[in-house]
Amino acid sequence: MSGRGEIDRLVTLLGRLPGLGPRSARRAALALLRQPHARMLPLAQAMEQAARAVRTCSTCGNLDTTDPCAICADPTRDAGLVCVVENVGDLWALERAGVHRGVYQVLGGTLSALSGIGPDDLNVQPLLDRIAQGGVREVILALGATVEGATTMHWLHERLARFDIKISRVGQGVPVGGALDVLDDGTLAAAIMARRPA
Amino acid sequence: MSGRGEIDRLVTLLGRLPGLGPRSARRAALALLRQPHARMLPLAQAMEQAARAVRTCSTCGNLDTTDPCAICADPTRDAGLVCVVENVGDLWALERAGVHRGVYQVLGGTLSALSGIGPDDLNVQPLLDRIAQGGVREVILALGATVEGATTMHWLHERLARFDIKISRVGQGVPVGGALDVLDDGTLAAAIMARRPA
Repeated sequence: MSGRGEIDRLVTLLGRLPGLGPRSARRAALALLRQPHARMLPLAQAMEQAARAVRTCSTCGNLDTTDPCAICADPTRDAGLVCVVENVGDLWALERAGVHRGVYQVLGGTLSALSGIGPDDLNVQPLLDRIAQGGVREVILALGATVEGATTMHWLHERLARFDIKISRVGQGVPVGGALDVLDDGTLAAAIMARRPA
Repeated sequence: MSGRGEIDRLVTLLGRLPGLGPRSARRAALALLRQPHARMLPLAQAMEQAARAVRTCSTCGNLDTTDPCAICADPTRDAGLVCVVENVGDLWALERAGVHRGVYQVLGGTLSALSGIGPDDLNVQPLLDRIAQGGVREVILALGATVEGATTMHWLHERLARFDIKISRVGQGVPVGGALDVLDDGTLAAAIMARRPA
């Protein structure tokens, strides 16, 4: 299929998005090509505007159009309660759930020998600065229940232990709405360990 | 999450692409936001270029950057052998397989009372014109093995019967590499009906 460089390039670049394989990239490209003015140009412009507007919050590492981000700048949020997450996707998930009234620290990853991510690669210093300046009362470690997440929580716990603050971690157990018989052994063990009086 | 209109808009528009739900749209948006200059701007530019370059071939209905499209304009392809497909995605699939040396006619849909698609909505006239001008030897009906596909093939067969050309349709049966025990009854029946001497 020579002579259609623009179309091939569109399919190739769409196929590099996470969650889109070659097949769905072609479907998406076709949907856009069928409505170039109604669908493709608005998306192209939204991308260009977002690319030019996006900032990394220098306080917490969130992605937003302002620095500090809307969460850090919000005076109604509890700046003394910092929730540490691996990435911005986790922050978005917690915000959608509306379960955290404090602020965040986005690490940008977890310790992983396999991926070559060491302590220096994690965005921790702004959190240490915030704690050193006082005003942080509690740090919630909200990392995934994986080997990397556990390693990172352990390491962070050690680094934060010298400060006079409360350190907590998210609970582990049976997901709400989840049946027990489909859960893995690790989750079941964690759920039993985290049992509470009924 | 106020104050991030550009990011919300990007997620919303990405989520309207086929194959991307809200969850994968957020993942894709995050991947782009993390690399605004390396990933998002190139994709935005590719979309804008494709949107401005795309043409519908007035001969066959294919989407390309030229009209007539590269296939219709290719002198090495057999213009006397026209393969009728429902949409451009089907044309792309046949081209990837490299199984058709002729040209195409893209209907842009199939007859469907449910979707309100009638004969006037199908891109058939260019095919009739090509046949009337002579030079078309055979028409291959390559429509899906669905009720709508079968209805459309039947209707097209009636419209083409008055011309002195060969009309064929794609074979039906067991997909290559497919096991019999996972196939539906209709496919199994078609495979038995389409049996050939071994």
